[in-house]
Amino acid sequence: MISKTKIKYIQSLGQKKFRDKEKMFIVEGPKIIHELLLSEQVNIVEVIALKEWITENQQYLGSLPVTEVQPYELEKLSQLSVPNKVIALVEQFDRSVIQPAGNEVILALDCIQDPGNLGTIIRIADWFAISRIVCSHDCADVYNPKVVQSSMGSILRIPVFYCDLQSWLQQQGNTRIFAAVMEGQPVNNTDINDKAIIVLGNESKGISKEVLESVNVRITIPGKGKAESLNVAVAAGIILSHLT
Amino acid sequence: MISKTKIKYIQSLGQKKFRDKEKMFIVEGPKIIHELLLSEQVNIVEVIALKEWITENQQYLGSLPVTEVQPYELEKLSQLSVPNKVIALVEQFDRSVIQPAGNEVILALDCIQDPGNLGTIIRIADWFAISRIVCSHDCADVYNPKVVQSSMGSILRIPVFYCDLQSWLQQQGNTRIFAAVMEGQPVNNTDINDKAIIVLGNESKGISKEVLESVNVRITIPGKGKAESLNVAVAAGIILSHLT
Repeated sequence: MISKTKIKYIQSLGQKKFRDKEKMFIVEGPKIIHELLLSEQVNIVEVIALKEWITENQQYLGSLPVTEVQPYELEKLSQLSVPNKVIALVEQFDRSVIQPAGNEVILALDCIQDPGNLGTIIRIADWFAISRIVCSHDCADVYNPKVVQSSMGSILRIPVFYCDLQSWLQQQGNTRIFAAVMEGQPVNNTDINDKAIIVLGNESKGISKEVLESVNVRITIPGKGKAESLNVAVAAGIILSHLT
Repeated sequence: MISKTKIKYIQSLGQKKFRDKEKMFIVEGPKIIHELLLSEQVNIVEVIALKEWITENQQYLGSLPVTEVQPYELEKLSQLSVPNKVIALVEQFDRSVIQPAGNEVILALDCIQDPGNLGTIIRIADWFAISRIVCSHDCADVYNPKVVQSSMGSILRIPVFYCDLQSWLQQQGNTRIFAAVMEGQPVNNTDINDKAIIVLGNESKGISKEVLESVNVRITIPGKGKAESLNVAVAAGIILSHLT
């Protein structure tokens, strides 16, 4: 049994303004919550689950507050079209300080607005062991339930920071900045070594003029067909797959 | 003004069984419908649009039946969260006969169920000038509104066929069949030339055992990070970007 107040509280976390105020977010589904329970870097505040899930996962729960709910209650709480057994209330990560670029590959996202794209890019970054992602303030919120979902657990491993991207890039001194654009040098002929920032831009407008000013190398994905563009997450995957 | 019967008819085309029966599908939004109007291979049966769209596009409409609607009526017809000025009722393409593989690269999809993934893969195929896509019967329907939308117009250019994939692959004689799997040879060290079939599998289960039997070369996308897998559309993009 779960109180009406708690249902309202969890539902409110579907909205960014409440997530930011509470410094919380929600995570759904057995697979990613299993990862959460095994992670030492994540602070789970509460788990809300069906009886069967609680029984199966008793050994991982320790002293964690757990609320058992009925399927119809879970449905009210869930942001998914098909609710999936368990929801966790989790503390947001502290990402207030952004270190300057070191010997690493960083993805910089300029106004990536679709939550599914952002989540997929985080998953790709995790596949290719990118150290972190730096987002402009107008990107989708990393704690948006659709981002969490489409990242498939990778938001637990890849730190995502928000900043004034234009100013941040201007401060990155001798790190080479690459940008994915429609007309640049072919990515397969570009040597992107292990100290680089790769900028990807908005789904329809591309990279803003201000951000482009800091870019050293413009790269493109050669295509022979007639499609006007590639999905931005697909572009991210292709570019990272050409890293040496 | 649009009749209730027509509203019901258009709405019914949101479902595969009605689309199949009527051999029709719907396309939404000014950009893709502009492409439709310029294409000679597409048979538009009717256009339903707001007054402003009709005024702006009068010169392309010729003798095409056009129904003017109010925004509240368009909202009833649209499958999009934000209806977009115009809907077209379009005849399905005739894809009943599948030619055997020739000197071309073909994508073969085994049970790709997410419409967004299928649409994105069609868009990628169009970017890399893949000649056609062959789908197993349990893939998402190419005329699903979400597939049409996420293909960004590429369904007009890339023929998509449905068949018993296992049998079809067995009949492709001397064409090399590559498959994207979790453990194979690195795609960047694989020479995929211009006569090849590339198989991609289901989002969670991968490629079925039966389909794998026809595969000559298993390839994989090397990753150094901790993500368990890549999104299948992203994998398609990466593999095709490594074609010579």
